[in-house]
Amino acid sequence: MTAHFFDAAKPVAYEGPESRNPLAFRWYNPDEIVLGKRMEDHLRFAVCYWHSFAWPGSDPFGGQTFERPWFGGDDPLALARAKADVAFDLFRILDVPFFTFHDRDIAPEGASLAESDRNVKAIGDIFAARMETAKVKLLWGTANLFSHRRYMAGAASNPDPDVFAYAAAQVKTVFDLTHALGGENYVLWGGREGYETLLNTDFRRELDQLGRFLSLVVEHKHKIGFKGQILIEPKPKEPTKHQYDYDVATVYAFLRRYGLEHEVKLNLEQNHAILAGHSFEHEIALAFALGVFGSLDINRGDYLLGWDTDQFAMNVPELALALYEFLKGGGFTSGGLNFDAKIRRQSLDPVDLIQAHVGSMDAIGRALKVAAAMIEDGELARFVDARYAGWEGEEAKAMLAGRRSLDEIAARVHAEGLDPKPRSGRQEYLETLANRYL
Amino acid sequence: MTAHFFDAAKPVAYEGPESRNPLAFRWYNPDEIVLGKRMEDHLRFAVCYWHSFAWPGSDPFGGQTFERPWFGGDDPLALARAKADVAFDLFRILDVPFFTFHDRDIAPEGASLAESDRNVKAIGDIFAARMETAKVKLLWGTANLFSHRRYMAGAASNPDPDVFAYAAAQVKTVFDLTHALGGENYVLWGGREGYETLLNTDFRRELDQLGRFLSLVVEHKHKIGFKGQILIEPKPKEPTKHQYDYDVATVYAFLRRYGLEHEVKLNLEQNHAILAGHSFEHEIALAFALGVFGSLDINRGDYLLGWDTDQFAMNVPELALALYEFLKGGGFTSGGLNFDAKIRRQSLDPVDLIQAHVGSMDAIGRALKVAAAMIEDGELARFVDARYAGWEGEEAKAMLAGRRSLDEIAARVHAEGLDPKPRSGRQEYLETLANRYL
Amino acid sequence: MTAHFFDAAKPVAYEGPESRNPLAFRWYNPDEIVLGKRMEDHLRFAVCYWHSFAWPGSDPFGGQTFERPWFGGDDPLALARAKADVAFDLFRILDVPFFTFHDRDIAPEGASLAESDRNVKAIGDIFAARMETAKVKLLWGTANLFSHRRYMAGAASNPDPDVFAYAAAQVKTVFDLTHALGGENYVLWGGREGYETLLNTDFRRELDQLGRFLSLVVEHKHKIGFKGQILIEPKPKEPTKHQYDYDVATVYAFLRRYGLEHEVKLNLEQNHAILAGHSFEHEIALAFALGVFGSLDINRGDYLLGWDTDQFAMNVPELALALYEFLKGGGFTSGGLNFDAKIRRQSLDPVDLIQAHVGSMDAIGRALKVAAAMIEDGELARFVDARYAGWEGEEAKAMLAGRRSLDEIAARVHAEGLDPKPRSGRQEYLETLANRYL
Amino acid sequence: MTAHFFDAAKPVAYEGPESRNPLAFRWYNPDEIVLGKRMEDHLRFAVCYWHSFAWPGSDPFGGQTFERPWFGGDDPLALARAKADVAFDLFRILDVPFFTFHDRDIAPEGASLAESDRNVKAIGDIFAARMETAKVKLLWGTANLFSHRRYMAGAASNPDPDVFAYAAAQVKTVFDLTHALGGENYVLWGGREGYETLLNTDFRRELDQLGRFLSLVVEHKHKIGFKGQILIEPKPKEPTKHQYDYDVATVYAFLRRYGLEHEVKLNLEQNHAILAGHSFEHEIALAFALGVFGSLDINRGDYLLGWDTDQFAMNVPELALALYEFLKGGGFTSGGLNFDAKIRRQSLDPVDLIQAHVGSMDAIGRALKVAAAMIEDGELARFVDARYAGWEGEEAKAMLAGRRSLDEIAARVHAEGLDPKPRSGRQEYLETLANRYL
Repeated sequence: MTAHFFDAAKPVAYEGPESRNPLAFRWYNPDEIVLGKRMEDHLRFAVCYWHSFAWPGSDPFGGQTFERPWFGGDDPLALARAKADVAFDLFRILDVPFFTFHDRDIAPEGASLAESDRNVKAIGDIFAARMETAKVKLLWGTANLFSHRRYMAGAASNPDPDVFAYAAAQVKTVFDLTHALGGENYVLWGGREGYETLLNTDFRRELDQLGRFLSLVVEHKHKIGFKGQILIEPKPKEPTKHQYDYDVATVYAFLRRYGLEHEVKLNLEQNHAILAGHSFEHEIALAFALGVFGSLDINRGDYLLGWDTDQFAMNVPELALALYEFLKGGGFTSGGLNFDAKIRRQSLDPVDLIQAHVGSMDAIGRALKVAAAMIEDGELARFVDARYAGWEGEEAKAMLAGRRSLDEIAARVHAEGLDPKPRSGRQEYLETLANRYL
Repeated sequence: MTAHFFDAAKPVAYEGPESRNPLAFRWYNPDEIVLGKRMEDHLRFAVCYWHSFAWPGSDPFGGQTFERPWFGGDDPLALARAKADVAFDLFRILDVPFFTFHDRDIAPEGASLAESDRNVKAIGDIFAARMETAKVKLLWGTANLFSHRRYMAGAASNPDPDVFAYAAAQVKTVFDLTHALGGENYVLWGGREGYETLLNTDFRRELDQLGRFLSLVVEHKHKIGFKGQILIEPKPKEPTKHQYDYDVATVYAFLRRYGLEHEVKLNLEQNHAILAGHSFEHEIALAFALGVFGSLDINRGDYLLGWDTDQFAMNVPELALALYEFLKGGGFTSGGLNFDAKIRRQSLDPVDLIQAHVGSMDAIGRALKVAAAMIEDGELARFVDARYAGWEGEEAKAMLAGRRSLDEIAARVHAEGLDPKPRSGRQEYLETLANRYL
Repeated sequence: MTAHFFDAAKPVAYEGPESRNPLAFRWYNPDEIVLGKRMEDHLRFAVCYWHSFAWPGSDPFGGQTFERPWFGGDDPLALARAKADVAFDLFRILDVPFFTFHDRDIAPEGASLAESDRNVKAIGDIFAARMETAKVKLLWGTANLFSHRRYMAGAASNPDPDVFAYAAAQVKTVFDLTHALGGENYVLWGGREGYETLLNTDFRRELDQLGRFLSLVVEHKHKIGFKGQILIEPKPKEPTKHQYDYDVATVYAFLRRYGLEHEVKLNLEQNHAILAGHSFEHEIALAFALGVFGSLDINRGDYLLGWDTDQFAMNVPELALALYEFLKGGGFTSGGLNFDAKIRRQSLDPVDLIQAHVGSMDAIGRALKVAAAMIEDGELARFVDARYAGWEGEEAKAMLAGRRSLDEIAARVHAEGLDPKPRSGRQEYLETLANRYL
Repeated sequence: MTAHFFDAAKPVAYEGPESRNPLAFRWYNPDEIVLGKRMEDHLRFAVCYWHSFAWPGSDPFGGQTFERPWFGGDDPLALARAKADVAFDLFRILDVPFFTFHDRDIAPEGASLAESDRNVKAIGDIFAARMETAKVKLLWGTANLFSHRRYMAGAASNPDPDVFAYAAAQVKTVFDLTHALGGENYVLWGGREGYETLLNTDFRRELDQLGRFLSLVVEHKHKIGFKGQILIEPKPKEPTKHQYDYDVATVYAFLRRYGLEHEVKLNLEQNHAILAGHSFEHEIALAFALGVFGSLDINRGDYLLGWDTDQFAMNVPELALALYEFLKGGGFTSGGLNFDAKIRRQSLDPVDLIQAHVGSMDAIGRALKVAAAMIEDGELARFVDARYAGWEGEEAKAMLAGRRSLDEIAARVHAEGLDPKPRSGRQEYLETLANRYL
């Protein structure tokens, strides 16, 4: 039924900057070597299941706009199989190395958890069979602990311990499936872990519940011998008023509090970063500085709107600044660039799904080259090194290493009559320089 | 010259709810017992020096509006003395138990650090003499490490180690003075600790510098035997694009990273909370949950503007929600309610300075009674207890205590066929209830 | 099937401020005279159909939480009838004088427009029958031109003229029904009139389409002899990125451009106001100043979130400021206070629907009394009059009336050596004063 | 004293995309023909006086960072002359065709208005002499009616008619000077026309005052025979809470209300647009659609901050979207691209002033070429034309022209059984296409 959804489209090919073919890559060239590594290996693109195959095009003011052969119908599992056909067809067309999923995107909720589990495993079997012959691998799986009404007041942080338990059981199934499918990471997103009003909330208890839940998952990882990375995805403000995993710093604080900072890393997203008031590159640089950088959800938020618009990223110079921090930090280990992005609800046609990924992969590919040029040229790094050069001095090192007391430092300041003069930060020069690489 | 600034105003008195005197308290009654403690001892009001005596009424689009006898003139130190006279007169009129200051608010910057130090100490001597006979005590002192151009690129996090050293020397002077004056806390506010562009910034190094600087201050505290509390004030977005002390969670993460979470607590502010995207009560509740609640800067931000407007807090039900979390957490130890609030730049008259404090103290006093009634009535607490009652069960306790594995929990869910049903969160009922206490 | 939904609840009664009954009014007393008019006649409360009876509790991250007897099922029209039963039961319990609806809230979309029309009319007949014996009247009706996918790119402003025509036909049906039911107003809300990207938009043409559409509705009003008011509801940012009816000033500009400023008035909402960056009282005062004030959608937005949260308004002093402008402007003619507010998706119980309205009606009733006291006391008005008193002078009047040229004014300034001195705006005094009436 | 401020820098030259010289143009080539016109004639760059020569580098948390030879000192008028030397030197170095000024940027406020006028005229004489031999012309002048404390509560909208008169006298002087200098426009920016609290404000009266003031200026224009354009600059939120000139739609509404829509056009700014919640291209397209497009202040705001950061614009694809609307609308008549942008307060060196302009002029030049390519290629326009093609049909034209009633349209919908099907908006395709021109 869905065999012809994409009308037998051929895989998208690199055709170079002069191509006028909107379904070709002009900049993203998987095999091209950038900073000593293939572009595909730098970027590790993943297509996500939920936005691209499960979302009906609804928004808070309107219903379904997309008419997909696998929507509606009487046999949900048959529809889920048809959806999987189309998904793997898109993976093939885009030639991406990875995909990602939530359990409820790939298989319908059953009348009981047992039936839901069977549904998930049935589709998991299809994935396993498909992956034997396809290029695509699993970047990560995750359990949807937010859509069903049972989770409306939280999963791990629910006032009802039975919901905690139910969520734990659901995670076990998805984690085990992720492991079986060779997933390189397992992700947790705590969309409902938070509160709407403190008037009905025991804040401290909920944090402890959340800490325990994550510890359970970490312990399970070691038990089953999963070698991948556990990831948490920070997100502020939506859906719940105050979510606990607000941003990089907040999640790091949480991990430290529960002794998990060496077990769990972070999956960052542009749209989540700006909703928390930070630039994407800030969150990336901070995660590297704190040693918890894991993976990226790539999309773009609308700076003038207050919710997750999850648009496909297209602004090359902005992407270049993020990828510059990414490359400086060392890039991915197990992570990847997951398209947590959705076509606009007016983008009705099957080709729009292909087009959106192609356009954004190309913008990102171009931005990678810009970021690589920033690094190779080295002028930015030299500027920064020179700016902090004073810290290479002996007294400076001694201060930073804790070998000087406040009294000693103050005495030296007075003895030497120190009166430091500021130097230009040269921001406009550096911004002009960054544009040179564009 | 300033003896008559407030025109020999009498101390503001409590006159009860029926009073029509705008310069009387209608709700704030210092000696009234609320929840077993005097209102004054609950609230521990402090008047700040900078907004009330140093700020000229300027904004980014206009200059000085206030004409104060201690502005301008040829002898800065004489003017600083005159300013101190007026300040202590306002403390007397408002009958507040505390005041707060930055070094550069109370005394002029000199031609050298040594001269600046001498100026600070000269005014410190005046304070000491005044405090012998006045009721007012010092809630905290702090060093201004942000106004002078030498700090434009940071104090502790400056690329130039000489600036770090200079800041350390400045802190030593103010900390020692705070100690000498019997200050109950010492505060650090890192307005310039952050960056404007990552293009010229070594993020990780700057965090380490900041960690070292704070450790220096902590070590100094122990060396001089200061028994008060060291406080950090989180603040996002202003003046620098990305400041490192963004919010409660971020500062907690920072303290954990540098092993300072038992040495340093937080000074929270309503306006800073909302600029970070949080409600004030969220930040208070989180600080208590993390064990780092210290003190409060009380003011109100404008929800529709993106910077610190630092208005005097006037909304009683909103204040009540914050004070409810404050009372539930246990209230102040060494902290207090510091008016980090400024009269509007159009509020030109001396009486406006008195009026603003009186109006806000009264709104806060009224809110305290509302919050106390919420606690005494107990219906809110009973609702919350009942909502989480399931966690008192044995299996629930075992899960939370780490005595169950993911596998065990999942097995139980399946064995018992758990299918938890959500219960109403009753938010509108609770909000209606909160209004009952108003 | 729904006869017992509210469990035969009795009408909510006024019990006075001392009542501890959460389902009683403590302040809202319909028959009490305030400023010479019954409270009910001032406030003209309306219950809306969509949030209270049609919304399933979904949000962008989760599905239905409410389980209503009239959701799902095989006979949509029978369910719509059951829903109407419950709706009128709530109107009775709350004893509200008005209700409001969209066509698609009250009756299901049919397989064709003709069938949809029949459905709407069938429910309209039920309304007519019910209204013969009930107190409740129709404040306004409106056509839902935003939920169905045909409207995804706009109704009046759609690139396809057939959608424009279809929308016109739909409006005709609802307008005629509103007229037949004695509705006091007819409302248009242009949720989809806007654009997501200028790249695919003919901005000027779409504005002209919108102007024509509104003119069609105005012409129809006169043709059918509808004596009520046509209202437009400004709203920014959601659902479409840039909606054309952004705020009061924007809609006024639009009305002027198409010569409709004497035909159409505005229906304002608190949440829409703040999303546009304005306070609710600003929008109210501006609408009165421009002569286009019509009606109010009463709710509260979350200042820290960027979308319509449509919560029930509860903050008394904030409401009082809005109602103060409302009373100063002269209050309602045909308009009313429509609860465009929804219970939180966790508020699952039928009683929550009652409770939310009761709590908010009571907060609004209390705020009305505060606002009335502000007016009756007169101190605020006297302050304002005194502040502008200079404009009563002859030269001032001459300037304002256009009887002086720039040259003449400048000559007088120089001749008289004018050097005006600013006077205190006394904001904190006025805010303290406003709190006195609380 | 300032002769060597820029160290005899040579005029910045176009060196082509391969140049590594940060002080050369790589894309902006004044004489290059783009869409049939020289780039310089398209863009009409102007350097502004206030940010570049008057701003000391202060922000709300810190004072002066820039040390300029013309700051401080005992003879303000001599310093103003020195400043003018440096300004014209920068105009020469950048080879810009225009500059802009406020009266108080170029000359010091005197002890009386008469003295202030003399100061302004003295510097005006210097300008006139300079302009005889320099290339640079005056794009516009304006009166600063916001910095001095007399204007703290508004200029035209002040409660005191003497302030209104004083402002009128000040405008006369600057307008006459602008005329004398051959200025191509005269600008009004109403930074203080607004209010902080409605509690002390007569909103309607203030709007009328503002309407009268603007009419005075328009009448004066005709009296003196000024052939240029009068411009108003919309700006929301800063400095005053609610400013009256919020955005394009608001100012248009205001002009319509006072019958000035054919006399006055708008000067738009990117940073002001986003503070009002709009994209820059939205404001440009709307101004063209309403027939009130005048001029542009070019800069960039920080999407994550809530005030005017006025940074130099650097993002090429974003600028291209704005310039695409600009070119489609027909570009400038009397307007120009005025750099209402300031170097960061850490950018201390004279060369930073040059660098910032060069970097941004170059980014804008590049963006102009991208926008021109979007137009020349025509694929975007063809897409839009095809999307609205249905409106070329006879019935569609009849509807839009007002030749069909609601009844007639509804009858046709039913008769034809219209059921329009939505078509893809293809946003991602169009965004990919836009990137092709980059």
